Amino acid sequence: MTTLDLNSDLGESFGNWTMGNDTAVLDLVSSANIACGFHAGDPNVMLKTVSAAYSRGVRIGAHIGYRDLAGFGRRFIDYSHEDLVAETIYQIGAIQAIATAAGATVEYVKPHGALYNTIAVNPEPAAAVIEGITRVDPTLKLMALAGSPIVEQARCMGLQVQQEAFADRAYTAAGQLVSRSQPGAVHHDPQIAAAQALAFAQGQPIKAITGEEVLIKADSLCVHGDNPAALELIKNIISTLNTHGIKVSNGC
Amino acid sequence: MTTLDLNSDLGESFGNWTMGNDTAVLDLVSSANIACGFHAGDPNVMLKTVSAAYSRGVRIGAHIGYRDLAGFGRRFIDYSHEDLVAETIYQIGAIQAIATAAGATVEYVKPHGALYNTIAVNPEPAAAVIEGITRVDPTLKLMALAGSPIVEQARCMGLQVQQEAFADRAYTAAGQLVSRSQPGAVHHDPQIAAAQALAFAQGQPIKAITGEEVLIKADSLCVHGDNPAALELIKNIISTLNTHGIKVSNGC
Amino acid sequence: MTTLDLNSDLGESFGNWTMGNDTAVLDLVSSANIACGFHAGDPNVMLKTVSAAYSRGVRIGAHIGYRDLAGFGRRFIDYSHEDLVAETIYQIGAIQAIATAAGATVEYVKPHGALYNTIAVNPEPAAAVIEGITRVDPTLKLMALAGSPIVEQARCMGLQVQQEAFADRAYTAAGQLVSRSQPGAVHHDPQIAAAQALAFAQGQPIKAITGEEVLIKADSLCVHGDNPAALELIKNIISTLNTHGIKVSNGC
Amino acid sequence: MTTLDLNSDLGESFGNWTMGNDTAVLDLVSSANIACGFHAGDPNVMLKTVSAAYSRGVRIGAHIGYRDLAGFGRRFIDYSHEDLVAETIYQIGAIQAIATAAGATVEYVKPHGALYNTIAVNPEPAAAVIEGITRVDPTLKLMALAGSPIVEQARCMGLQVQQEAFADRAYTAAGQLVSRSQPGAVHHDPQIAAAQALAFAQGQPIKAITGEEVLIKADSLCVHGDNPAALELIKNIISTLNTHGIKVSNGC
Repeated sequence: MTTLDLNSDLGESFGNWTMGNDTAVLDLVSSANIACGFHAGDPNVMLKTVSAAYSRGVRIGAHIGYRDLAGFGRRFIDYSHEDLVAETIYQIGAIQAIATAAGATVEYVKPHGALYNTIAVNPEPAAAVIEGITRVDPTLKLMALAGSPIVEQARCMGLQVQQEAFADRAYTAAGQLVSRSQPGAVHHDPQIAAAQALAFAQGQPIKAITGEEVLIKADSLCVHGDNPAALELIKNIISTLNTHGIKVSNGC
Repeated sequence: MTTLDLNSDLGESFGNWTMGNDTAVLDLVSSANIACGFHAGDPNVMLKTVSAAYSRGVRIGAHIGYRDLAGFGRRFIDYSHEDLVAETIYQIGAIQAIATAAGATVEYVKPHGALYNTIAVNPEPAAAVIEGITRVDPTLKLMALAGSPIVEQARCMGLQVQQEAFADRAYTAAGQLVSRSQPGAVHHDPQIAAAQALAFAQGQPIKAITGEEVLIKADSLCVHGDNPAALELIKNIISTLNTHGIKVSNGC
Repeated sequence: MTTLDLNSDLGESFGNWTMGNDTAVLDLVSSANIACGFHAGDPNVMLKTVSAAYSRGVRIGAHIGYRDLAGFGRRFIDYSHEDLVAETIYQIGAIQAIATAAGATVEYVKPHGALYNTIAVNPEPAAAVIEGITRVDPTLKLMALAGSPIVEQARCMGLQVQQEAFADRAYTAAGQLVSRSQPGAVHHDPQIAAAQALAFAQGQPIKAITGEEVLIKADSLCVHGDNPAALELIKNIISTLNTHGIKVSNGC
Repeated sequence: MTTLDLNSDLGESFGNWTMGNDTAVLDLVSSANIACGFHAGDPNVMLKTVSAAYSRGVRIGAHIGYRDLAGFGRRFIDYSHEDLVAETIYQIGAIQAIATAAGATVEYVKPHGALYNTIAVNPEPAAAVIEGITRVDPTLKLMALAGSPIVEQARCMGLQVQQEAFADRAYTAAGQLVSRSQPGAVHHDPQIAAAQALAFAQGQPIKAITGEEVLIKADSLCVHGDNPAALELIKNIISTLNTHGIKVSNGC
């Protein structure tokens, strides 16, 4: 492998409220998960963010979420199957039209926040999201937590899946993320994060929190750019990858 | 002309709140203006309504509105140009994906309520809606108030326009709707409404509120089915049209 | 006991959407749980409903809920403690001012839907609601599911609690509601519902779904009036109570 | 006069979105206009902001607005009278309860954004807001644009009014604000702003944009603290006032 995809959550401003550092992040990453107005974003923000991503050759993903602006999509909501199917379809369609208006195309879907975590391990809501994607366009890829049950479920239902990993998060020996409530869950040392990213890119195992080697299949690396330190972390990862002959790219 | 299109506002339920009599109306009309979740409707309601329309061969239109559930889109909101462009695109895309999921296609756009009235006569917000439609798909038709300034404006900007008339509303000698605040603005006599519908269908002039003859170009007739009397009015119009050899049809 | 309180969920319309049969129900019950705009209701609906209750001497309660109009407050949402405290305070204050504007007073708080069910048995969110009520006005009563853990929890934290029972729901031998997913959970026979109501009013045990006698402490009976059959059920209950010398009254 | 009230719009964060520099501003001003959740703010933000104001002895005002988070209350919405009355009552009640929970009291009401501008000069919506305030508590003061028609209207309807002026805005010879669309509408020179604030405090006339002297009756000065320059402007005004023996105070 000579490339690695970097994705980031973008377009999370809403009306008069600004969030994030979208332009700086778009200059670094290869895939943009763009909020679709349910947990963050609004049509105007979406159009600007899609345009900014498109003009940089950054791949556009629908970052769909629970309908909960007040909770930023981070609170589990106990949706019915049919509501979750319909809201998945609705959000994808909204950003597809925004992309069309900007000359661009939506290539993947990445659920956000509590929805992301819920469907990673719960097959019923996962089935609703997969059904929603499939009914709009079965060639849309699903970006999901590397190694989580939804990966196989979505593939069995015919979707292409991109497995997402995290450079700055510790993993268990079983290949699961260590919960943020555990000590050591987050790698604060940029060197460790960069080394872990490099291992993902090279298809090498990383060291689990309990010391064992564990191989994480990672098609894309999730990065955040909310503050200067986070931007530095991204740059450090990219520099380490480049040094080893690996380019940041969405493969298109 | 041997056909006349009848359109009605549908899919206006929201969550646990039910509105209208959608199934009964869908059995009668040829075009369904389906709310897109901003002034009414939600993704689940949209999916059900689009499916019900599609299964009956009823044409599907995007009934876009101001983002104002609390006001049902009936209150003017002083939008910026870019917000109105983006929200037009967003709503159209949302219902396009819903239609795709149901095997159907969106064929036209009809703005709702205060947005409809505002853009009929104000070229600036009209331009925003026209731009939004065009940027998603310039083959989408715009349904607009017959004889209003937006008709020419949209045509000059390249859109096909369908002019909409009302069987139960009085017109001025200049071809404008008499304001609801004026006496005589609404025809309560079903015979008069049916006769006016027939005149539209036959390309004949109607009698203006001040007695003169006035010719209204009508590609579609807007009808409402909220109560039994309204449903009777529709049936009476259809029966009168049929008696004169005119079929209700969207022309497809 | 010579009186029994009947309460009903009211003021659940929203904007242009009408729900329920508020006037007919207000003529029958003694306590009105009025939605506060988060799961249903809006300020205008609240003011009309509070006025209609007040003019009939019906006691006014704050029917607080999750912030989820699209889900009508019936979906569990995983709130933080501080959000739930603050939203409890906010909703109570809103309806208190509405009541003041109508010359009335809010006397109790009844959580709605998923919030009601959640706090009945989960002490952490229950503590947030209790804290919210207490910080606004510790003399406000809490209306809660009879026999549920929150009853004691709220009393220990200093609130007066009114225990609510259901005439048309079956109970377990342990005094818990039989889940709606079980057969026999709902009494469809109006005679059984009325007899159960009478037993509550007389402080007599009822027959549990498994045949044992069980005593349910009920300060208020929850009734619904959404359809003609439901209204008949209420009237039948009242008539049975009256025949046995028991009046519907909130005790004021 | 030996004191001048400084007020600022605060509590405008929403959910995960942060806005403003509330702590720094609260250390400088004497009155806090706190958003009530309709155009900005949420219950949790309100509770924190009210507490922070109360602990500093800063007076608490209800900053009420149109129900339009997406537009931040800056877009005119064509409300009905009864909706505007009810939403005024609702928002005031909500923040009153939040204040009660924090041990504080709401002392005045200042409408926000498009609502502020609309009611300053339009007697019909102004009457709705005045009615709403009066029905909750006629001792609440209204803060309104100095010299605008609503000042007299509110006084005739029995409210106490505080007239608000701007240190950094130019005025016409008739005492009206110069529209922001005109050149010279905003004083960018901190010295001019401070001098104008001093004139207000001393009851001296200021120089109108056309050169004449004009006397503006100002009970409170509106200041913004969104950025470091704005904070410097406030500090410069306070320092100028102090040099002339005038203290920033809400008079309590």
